Amino acid sequence: MTPIDPVALTADLVRCESVTPAEGGALVLLEKLLSGADFECTRVDRNGIANLYARWGRKGANRTFGFNGHTDVVPVGNIKDWTVDPFGAAIKDGFLYGRGSTDMKSGVAAFAAAAVDFVRATPPDGAVVLAITGDEEADALDGTTALLDWMAENNERMTDCLVGEPTSPNHMGEAMKIGRRGSLTVWFTFTGVQGHSAYPHRAKNPLHAMARLMNVLGSYTLDDGTDHFDPSSLAIVTVDTGNPATNVIPAQCTATVNIRFNDLHSGDGLTAWLQDEANKVAAATGIDIALRVKVSGESFVTPPGPLSDLIGKAVQAETGQVPALSTSGGTSDARFVKDHCPVVEFGLVGKTMHQVDERVPVKDIIQLKAIYARILSDYFADTSR
Amino acid sequence: MTPIDPVALTADLVRCESVTPAEGGALVLLEKLLSGADFECTRVDRNGIANLYARWGRKGANRTFGFNGHTDVVPVGNIKDWTVDPFGAAIKDGFLYGRGSTDMKSGVAAFAAAAVDFVRATPPDGAVVLAITGDEEADALDGTTALLDWMAENNERMTDCLVGEPTSPNHMGEAMKIGRRGSLTVWFTFTGVQGHSAYPHRAKNPLHAMARLMNVLGSYTLDDGTDHFDPSSLAIVTVDTGNPATNVIPAQCTATVNIRFNDLHSGDGLTAWLQDEANKVAAATGIDIALRVKVSGESFVTPPGPLSDLIGKAVQAETGQVPALSTSGGTSDARFVKDHCPVVEFGLVGKTMHQVDERVPVKDIIQLKAIYARILSDYFADTSR
Repeated sequence: MTPIDPVALTADLVRCESVTPAEGGALVLLEKLLSGADFECTRVDRNGIANLYARWGRKGANRTFGFNGHTDVVPVGNIKDWTVDPFGAAIKDGFLYGRGSTDMKSGVAAFAAAAVDFVRATPPDGAVVLAITGDEEADALDGTTALLDWMAENNERMTDCLVGEPTSPNHMGEAMKIGRRGSLTVWFTFTGVQGHSAYPHRAKNPLHAMARLMNVLGSYTLDDGTDHFDPSSLAIVTVDTGNPATNVIPAQCTATVNIRFNDLHSGDGLTAWLQDEANKVAAATGIDIALRVKVSGESFVTPPGPLSDLIGKAVQAETGQVPALSTSGGTSDARFVKDHCPVVEFGLVGKTMHQVDERVPVKDIIQLKAIYARILSDYFADTSR
Repeated sequence: MTPIDPVALTADLVRCESVTPAEGGALVLLEKLLSGADFECTRVDRNGIANLYARWGRKGANRTFGFNGHTDVVPVGNIKDWTVDPFGAAIKDGFLYGRGSTDMKSGVAAFAAAAVDFVRATPPDGAVVLAITGDEEADALDGTTALLDWMAENNERMTDCLVGEPTSPNHMGEAMKIGRRGSLTVWFTFTGVQGHSAYPHRAKNPLHAMARLMNVLGSYTLDDGTDHFDPSSLAIVTVDTGNPATNVIPAQCTATVNIRFNDLHSGDGLTAWLQDEANKVAAATGIDIALRVKVSGESFVTPPGPLSDLIGKAVQAETGQVPALSTSGGTSDARFVKDHCPVVEFGLVGKTMHQVDERVPVKDIIQLKAIYARILSDYFADTSR
């Protein structure tokens, strides 16, 4: 059979206006392709969010290689700034343009094309799973988690999983991601007693407590990094009061801090630390300090091993580059998959993600399909698994 | 002759709508009264601001007692919140109501009435000066300073001066003011480099420098007070950023600090200290820290001596209370007069100043006139001066 063209498939997906969390026809298109190649497809929709689970081969096979990705895209932003139709999938000077072309419709197209060609040409002893969501860019509450919940309920499994998100900063093959730092945001509210700045002893100034606590947090060294992670980092992102009068001590101010943390920390541990430091400053200053914490993801790592070796070798064979094992960057759905099985991310160069005139070199899509295809054939060729 | 009724005079002044810097008829009214009592009156207007200089007795006399005050008033605020006409001078339940009734038309009426009665009844060996401005509540650029400038040019002098501003917190006679703290405001702007909070090493976070500098300033002990002053105080009054995104390190934030300082400090000295502390934090953090300073008044004191003794004895004789020698509160025109001669402030209870339904007990106006009258007679009775 004719191999699937990943560039044409990417273009078809870009033409689906699947601005998060709209399905936009993207998952319907993929389901049609995969069903035609004997994948057993199930729409795992939840709370109005569309998700597609597709498995070729026997359910529960000991060797089940999974791909995870998303077809939803971020909004186009200011349409006037685009030089092309964001959903037109125009190809110019070797680039395919469009919202989601990099993040990550070409990744989905590349692994879908690679998987279909692979099972048709060399049906493996095992299973290939594609778990594709329409809810990664927004809240991600009913996306990959819905797929994983449904898999658990139905005894579906992946033994290893590759997330096809962009992973390289500048050149194809530079890096894969074997983990991600965790992310925690804390919103502080400092409440004192308003007063005249000529009589500060009659007031309780929340800003002095704020400065004290922020200085403690901002100058603290969380750690010096670990084997696979950069040092954890803490950024004060905003402090606000809104007091226009220089002769008035305000009653309240707020501060927000974001922490990106490695595998030495957990959301709970950091929350306890923040509460403890806030308590100390509150006790010393008499200022009430309330805090609200949101952990958007725990840190995780799939330690270097068979999965990263497999991916590294395939990338090197196709690109000549040995990809670094990175844990940098923000969050991705790998933070959910890591509770299910070993997971590594590998995909395109991320440069134009979320930008105006988002685009992907056509040759990179072709190369990415080749890498994914090699990963599949190497994975099933190794019968020691 | 009939003594001047200070209550009727206060009411007449309240009926003049002299919202700062409008003259509103108040100085014209006073000039008529004083001229009629053989005061030599001069309107010392400058830049459209009205001021009145009135002297009884010989110019340059060795004993020239001066009163300083103002007839301009702050705006009425929300007129709907008043229960009376702010310029109606209604008398209800023993109170005279109206904008400026406390601050400080009754003070001006009391010293004008006392002075007129005094020079008529017992013409002193010396002079009595009334220096009354229409510009105290606003910028005070062309008010008492204009009077003092004109006095210097014309060899007019006061050997001692009483400013008739309200000085007592709760009860008549509680306190006189022998000085005031200085006031300085500094506006800081911290400028770094914007970036993603997941990559803080690529950004320069101005908020960390802000927290560091504000913590240094906020926890610094400027002094422990002096003989006549409370400790100097520093209040952070606002810190603002306006960054809505928790994953973005902002490029800039601002902070405002207000310092009330005693006679151990000067505006220049504090400015140098602030610049120095800012430089240290800038050098340590790589954040640009710009600062703008405004000194609204230097600290000053008329040390306890003949003038405060004179006033204290008169207050005690009329009220039974020994007034405390205070240096608390904001600024007043005494900050200008202090460069001309010894100056002390004594006046009413300030409670309702600048408020809706500003009012003064009628009996306090009468008592205040009696105190001022006693000060004048004691002053000129003491021929050792």
